Amino acid sequence: MIKVGIVGGTGYTGVELLRLLAQHPEVELVAITSRTEDGLPVATLFPSLRGRVSLAFSDPAKAALERCDVVFFATPHGVAMAQSPALLKAGVRVIDLAADFRIKDPEVFQKWYGMPHAAPDLLREAVYGLPEVNREALRKARLVGMAGCYPTSMQLGYAPLLAQARALVDEGHLVADCKSGVSGAGRKAEIGNLLAEASDNFKAYAVKGHRHLPETVQGLEAIARRPVGLTFVPHLLPMIRGIHSTLYARILPGAMDTDFQMLYETHYAHEPFVDVMPPGSTPETRSVRASNYLRIALHRPDGGDTLIVLVVEDNLVKGASGQAVQAMNIMFGLPEDTGLRQIAVLP
Amino acid sequence: MIKVGIVGGTGYTGVELLRLLAQHPEVELVAITSRTEDGLPVATLFPSLRGRVSLAFSDPAKAALERCDVVFFATPHGVAMAQSPALLKAGVRVIDLAADFRIKDPEVFQKWYGMPHAAPDLLREAVYGLPEVNREALRKARLVGMAGCYPTSMQLGYAPLLAQARALVDEGHLVADCKSGVSGAGRKAEIGNLLAEASDNFKAYAVKGHRHLPETVQGLEAIARRPVGLTFVPHLLPMIRGIHSTLYARILPGAMDTDFQMLYETHYAHEPFVDVMPPGSTPETRSVRASNYLRIALHRPDGGDTLIVLVVEDNLVKGASGQAVQAMNIMFGLPEDTGLRQIAVLP
Amino acid sequence: MIKVGIVGGTGYTGVELLRLLAQHPEVELVAITSRTEDGLPVATLFPSLRGRVSLAFSDPAKAALERCDVVFFATPHGVAMAQSPALLKAGVRVIDLAADFRIKDPEVFQKWYGMPHAAPDLLREAVYGLPEVNREALRKARLVGMAGCYPTSMQLGYAPLLAQARALVDEGHLVADCKSGVSGAGRKAEIGNLLAEASDNFKAYAVKGHRHLPETVQGLEAIARRPVGLTFVPHLLPMIRGIHSTLYARILPGAMDTDFQMLYETHYAHEPFVDVMPPGSTPETRSVRASNYLRIALHRPDGGDTLIVLVVEDNLVKGASGQAVQAMNIMFGLPEDTGLRQIAVLP
Amino acid sequence: MIKVGIVGGTGYTGVELLRLLAQHPEVELVAITSRTEDGLPVATLFPSLRGRVSLAFSDPAKAALERCDVVFFATPHGVAMAQSPALLKAGVRVIDLAADFRIKDPEVFQKWYGMPHAAPDLLREAVYGLPEVNREALRKARLVGMAGCYPTSMQLGYAPLLAQARALVDEGHLVADCKSGVSGAGRKAEIGNLLAEASDNFKAYAVKGHRHLPETVQGLEAIARRPVGLTFVPHLLPMIRGIHSTLYARILPGAMDTDFQMLYETHYAHEPFVDVMPPGSTPETRSVRASNYLRIALHRPDGGDTLIVLVVEDNLVKGASGQAVQAMNIMFGLPEDTGLRQIAVLP
Repeated sequence: MIKVGIVGGTGYTGVELLRLLAQHPEVELVAITSRTEDGLPVATLFPSLRGRVSLAFSDPAKAALERCDVVFFATPHGVAMAQSPALLKAGVRVIDLAADFRIKDPEVFQKWYGMPHAAPDLLREAVYGLPEVNREALRKARLVGMAGCYPTSMQLGYAPLLAQARALVDEGHLVADCKSGVSGAGRKAEIGNLLAEASDNFKAYAVKGHRHLPETVQGLEAIARRPVGLTFVPHLLPMIRGIHSTLYARILPGAMDTDFQMLYETHYAHEPFVDVMPPGSTPETRSVRASNYLRIALHRPDGGDTLIVLVVEDNLVKGASGQAVQAMNIMFGLPEDTGLRQIAVLP
Repeated sequence: MIKVGIVGGTGYTGVELLRLLAQHPEVELVAITSRTEDGLPVATLFPSLRGRVSLAFSDPAKAALERCDVVFFATPHGVAMAQSPALLKAGVRVIDLAADFRIKDPEVFQKWYGMPHAAPDLLREAVYGLPEVNREALRKARLVGMAGCYPTSMQLGYAPLLAQARALVDEGHLVADCKSGVSGAGRKAEIGNLLAEASDNFKAYAVKGHRHLPETVQGLEAIARRPVGLTFVPHLLPMIRGIHSTLYARILPGAMDTDFQMLYETHYAHEPFVDVMPPGSTPETRSVRASNYLRIALHRPDGGDTLIVLVVEDNLVKGASGQAVQAMNIMFGLPEDTGLRQIAVLP
Repeated sequence: MIKVGIVGGTGYTGVELLRLLAQHPEVELVAITSRTEDGLPVATLFPSLRGRVSLAFSDPAKAALERCDVVFFATPHGVAMAQSPALLKAGVRVIDLAADFRIKDPEVFQKWYGMPHAAPDLLREAVYGLPEVNREALRKARLVGMAGCYPTSMQLGYAPLLAQARALVDEGHLVADCKSGVSGAGRKAEIGNLLAEASDNFKAYAVKGHRHLPETVQGLEAIARRPVGLTFVPHLLPMIRGIHSTLYARILPGAMDTDFQMLYETHYAHEPFVDVMPPGSTPETRSVRASNYLRIALHRPDGGDTLIVLVVEDNLVKGASGQAVQAMNIMFGLPEDTGLRQIAVLP
Repeated sequence: MIKVGIVGGTGYTGVELLRLLAQHPEVELVAITSRTEDGLPVATLFPSLRGRVSLAFSDPAKAALERCDVVFFATPHGVAMAQSPALLKAGVRVIDLAADFRIKDPEVFQKWYGMPHAAPDLLREAVYGLPEVNREALRKARLVGMAGCYPTSMQLGYAPLLAQARALVDEGHLVADCKSGVSGAGRKAEIGNLLAEASDNFKAYAVKGHRHLPETVQGLEAIARRPVGLTFVPHLLPMIRGIHSTLYARILPGAMDTDFQMLYETHYAHEPFVDVMPPGSTPETRSVRASNYLRIALHRPDGGDTLIVLVVEDNLVKGASGQAVQAMNIMFGLPEDTGLRQIAVLP
C-alpha cells in the first residue's frame, strides 16, 4: 500500500483526490492537512465522504507527512514550492496540483504568478505531469508539477499535429477557444462565481492573458521542438465540471492531403484514457463527467484548410486530481488505470 | 416626478430597484450611495444598465439624500434604522427593504437579528409593506418596512383563510414548505452560494429557525386576529430567482364544505398583482420571473381534510424591489401598477 | 459470474444499470435489448460507455435472455409483466425497475396505470424491492418489483417511526413534500422537460394524485401494520439527479418524550447504505449524487409537536438502478455493497 | 395603432413576440393563429401572459389576417413562403422570423433547408431584417426576412471590419466560435434538448455545416462587397437564453496600426441597440438577458495580429422577436426603440 498524504484538502481538487484515493485499492490515506480546519473530520466538511473517509484534517505541523510515500499538494500556488524541499529530502515524492512546478523558467513564473519562485533549483528536476507526453520521465520522478486543466486539453488536442517532423498546420497561429465549468475557479468565496452571477450566463474572461497560456505554449513547443504561437480565450460555463476546448489550426498547403483522423488514432492508439472518436463526432463534456477520460474529435469543414479539434475532459479529474493519481500510478509502477476506471456519470 | 434616492445599490435588491425605477415614468433617480464604490458608475458594476442609468455611486456623506422625496434602503439589516430618523426629520419618506422595520417588538428583533434596535420609537409608526394587507396604512405612511420575500408568499397564501371570522383550518399547525432561488441570499461572497456548491443540488436550511418565521407569524396573526402556529422549512433551489411556497393546512371538521376556490377568488378579486389560478393549477416560478405578479393555486387531494396552497413569486420583484415600488406608488397616490407592468420573462 | 440481461437499456435507468454493472466484479453483461436500436452499439448511444461496454443492443427476439441468470427490466410500465412469466419458467430471475410488480392489488394497479395487469397471479409471489424493509424475502426471490424513487425516500424516511408497536405520530396525516430532479421523468421527448422549460424554474405537479402514492401507502401500511394517511406533493427541481423529501409528522401527545434521533440511529445501525446524520443536519442531494447512499436528518423545531424528516437520495441510484443491483446482490448471496461502493460526486 | 397578427404563436419566438407586443404602446394584437390550438387562450399555454393577453389561438382559416397591418410569422421554415403572397396581395406587410426570406438564392435555400422555395419571385423584394445594416431598405419594405440569431451576432460583430474600403483582416479565414442557449432550438420535444441531457453539459454541434452559415456569408459579403470565408462552429450552452460569439480575425500586415476600438465606436455611434464596450471588456450574456441590446468588446492580445471580437445578445430578443419589433417600428415610422426599452434582467 502506498502511504499518501494530502496538503490542503479543503478545495475541489482536494475533495476529488479524496474521492479517488479512498476508492484506490493500493492506497492508504495517512494524513490530510489544513491550517484552518485542524481536527475537523473530512466527512463533516464534505458529507459525500461520510462512512468512507474517517480521517480528520490535521495542522501541517503535526501531520508527519515525511512518513508518507507520496504527498499531493492541492493548495494555492506557492505552498508546494515552499514545502517540497524538506519532503523530498525526507525521501517523500511530491505531486503538486498547483502551478509551482509547471513552468521551467522562474522569471516566467514570477511574471504570471506574481511571486518569486522559492525553489528554482528544483525546476529542472521537476517533471511536467502530463502522462501521455511525459510517461517515461514520470516513472522515476521524485517531483511532479501536474499539468493545468486547460493546458491538458490543449496539449493533448494539438499534440498529434505538433509531434510530426514537419509542420502540418500554421503553428504560429493556433487558436484555442476554451470553455470551463466554474469548479476550475476553486472553492473560493468570490462574487463572480456565485450561482446568482455565473449560472444562466456565459462570458469570456482573462482574454488579455491567462496563466495557462505560458504553460501551454511551453508544453506545445516541447512537443513540437519548434516555436508555437497560440491565441487562448477561456470562457466560463454555467455548470460545475467539464472543459470543452475548440481548437483551430490552419492546414499548410503542403499538408492538405494528410489523413488527420488516422494521425490522431495512431498517436493515441495505446492510451488508456484518450479516446479519439469517429470522424464528425461532437464530444460532450458529460461523456467524461467524473471520469479520467478525455475525448477528441476532428472536423474539417468542406475539406478546406481549417482543422478543428474538439476536446472534452473533466477539469477536476483528467484536468487535475485524476491525472495526478494517474501520475502516481506510473511513479509507483502500478497499472496506469488503477483506481481510475470510473465510468462517466451520465445523465 | 418623484425624486428617489437609493442607499446601498450594490446588491441584488439594489440593482433590481434600479431596473424598475429607471423604467418608471414618474421617477427621477437622484442619488445612489455606496460606501465602497464612491464614484463608480452604476453601469460599470452592472453592465445591464449601460446606456440607461448614468448615475454613479456616491459616498453617503455627499449624497444629499435629504433632497429626495423618498429613499429606499437596499442595505444589510441595521443600516436603515440608523439613518432613517434624520431622513424622516428632513421630510423624506423611507422604504426599507431590509428587516429593520418589519418586526414590531424590538426584543423579538434583537433575538433574531442579533443587534439591539436603534430606533424602537419608530417601530409603532412604521407600516408593514404588504400592500394587499396594508394598503390603507401605506397611503399615508412616512416609514415602511417592506415584507420579506418568504413572508410575502406565506402571508398572501394564507391570508384568505385566516381573514375569516371563524377558523376554517387548524391555525395552530400550519406547515409552509418553501423553496427559494439563491438570489434571496444576496450578492455576498459565501462559499455555500457558489455555483459549484449550490447548482445541481438541493437542500433545506435554517430548519431550526429562520428570521422570516417571527415576521410571518406576526403578519399572520395580524390578519387572523388569533394566535397562529407555523412550521416553516426553507429550501435552496439551484436557480437564481423565484420562490415557490407549498402551504399545508388541516381543514377543520366544521369547514369541510367551504368553497376555498371561491374564497380566494373573492378575496383577491381586485388585486392587480395577485392571480388566483383555476383549481388544480400548478403555478411555475417562471410564470412570474422578473415580474411583480404572484400566483396562487389551490388543491385538496381527494376532497379530504388537507388544503394545499401553491404560491409563486419572484423573490426580487414581488418579494422585494417590485413590491417596494408598489408601496411607493401607493404612498405617492399613483396608480398602483405604474412602472410595474412588465410581463414575466418566459422561457 | 452472474449472467445479466437488460431489457430496454435506452433510458436513464438503463444506462445507469450499465454504468453500475460494467463496474461490478461479479457480473457478466450478456445481452441488452431494444426494439428500436437493434444492432447499435450501446456506446454509440451513450458515449460515456465508450471503451467500457462493447455490447450492442439486440432485438428482444434474438437476445436469448433465457440464458441469463437474472434479467433487469428498465422498460416502460407493462413490459415486464408481459415477458416475465416466460423468463421465470426458464429459470431466470427477474428484477423489474418499472411499476408492474410493485402494487399487490391488480385493481389498484389498473386504476393508476391505466392497463389491466397481465400477470396478476405473479403479484403474490413478487417481492417488493426495498432491501432495508424486505431483505429476507429478497434472498430467495425469483421476481422483484423494485420500489419507486419517491417511495424509497418516503418509506425509508418514515419507517423507523411506523415500525413501532404503538403510533408515535398522527399516522393518518403524514405530509410528504418531495422534490425530484428531472431524470425521474425518464429519457422521453416531452416539452415540459426541455431545458428551456424546466431549468431556472420550479413547480409542483401531479398534486391531485401521483402513481407513487398508492405504492407508498401500501408500503407504509406494511411497515406499520396499521392504516396510514399520506398527503404527497411532488415537485420538479431544475437539475438532473436527486430527490429531497421533506417529511412532516405530528407527534402524538403520548410520544412527546421520544428520542427520535436515537430511534432512527438504532433502526438503521447496520444498514450499509442508510446514513442517519447528526441532529440538526441538512442533507444535500449532492452528498449522494451518483452513489447508492440515502441520508436522513431529523428536526423538531423548538421541541414542539412537529417532527421533520429530511431524506436525500439519487433517484437513479438508490431510487432505481443502484437499489436494483443491491437487490441482485442479496438475491445471489453477494455482499450487499458489491459494486456499489462509489463515493458521491461532489462538487 | 398598428393591427398585428401572429402566425404560429406556440413557440419561443411566438411567446416572446407576445411579451413584447403586449407592452408595445402602438400595437393592437388582433389575431394569433395555431392549427393545433384553435380556441385555446394564449394565457393558458403561457401562464406568464395571464391577465395581460386575452387573445385565444385561432385556426388560420378563421383568423382574417388580411385585416392586419402587419403579420409576423413565428413558424417553422416553409410556412411564411406559402402564405405570404396572399397577405401581400391583400396589402398586409409581412415579417418572417423563420428562414424563408433570408437567403437570396433559391437553390442555396433548397440545399440547406431541404425544400424548394415556394415563392422565389418574392426573394428579390424581400428585405433582410438586420436594421443596423439595412435600415433604409426596411423603411419601405413590404416583406422582411428577419436575420437569424447567430447571423445577427456574427454580422454585427464583423460589420465594422468588413465595411471598410480595403480589407483590414484576412477576410477569407474568419473564425466564429459561437455559443447559444437552448431556446435557440425552439419549443420542440427532442431528447437532445431535455434538461437531463443538455444541462450540466456542453458540446459543439453541426460543425459540418449549420444553416446559419450560408446566411451569414451572404450577409458578410453584402457588407464587404468582397468574398468572405467563414468557419462557424456553434455550441450548445446549458442555459435558456443568450448567444456569445467569439469572433477571430487575422489582421493584415498593412492594417496593424488600425485603431479598431475607434473604428467600432464610430461605426455604431448612433445605434440605439448596439453597445461597444470599453476596450478589454468581457461582455456577459446576462447583461442583455430579455433585452434588445447587443454588446461588443474588442481584444487584441499582446497587440499581435489576432483580433478578437466578443459579441453577446439575447437570441430570442435581438436575435429574433425583439429585432422583428425593431424592424416593424422602422417600417411604420415609429421611433426605433418604441416598446423595446426593457432593461436586461440581472441577476
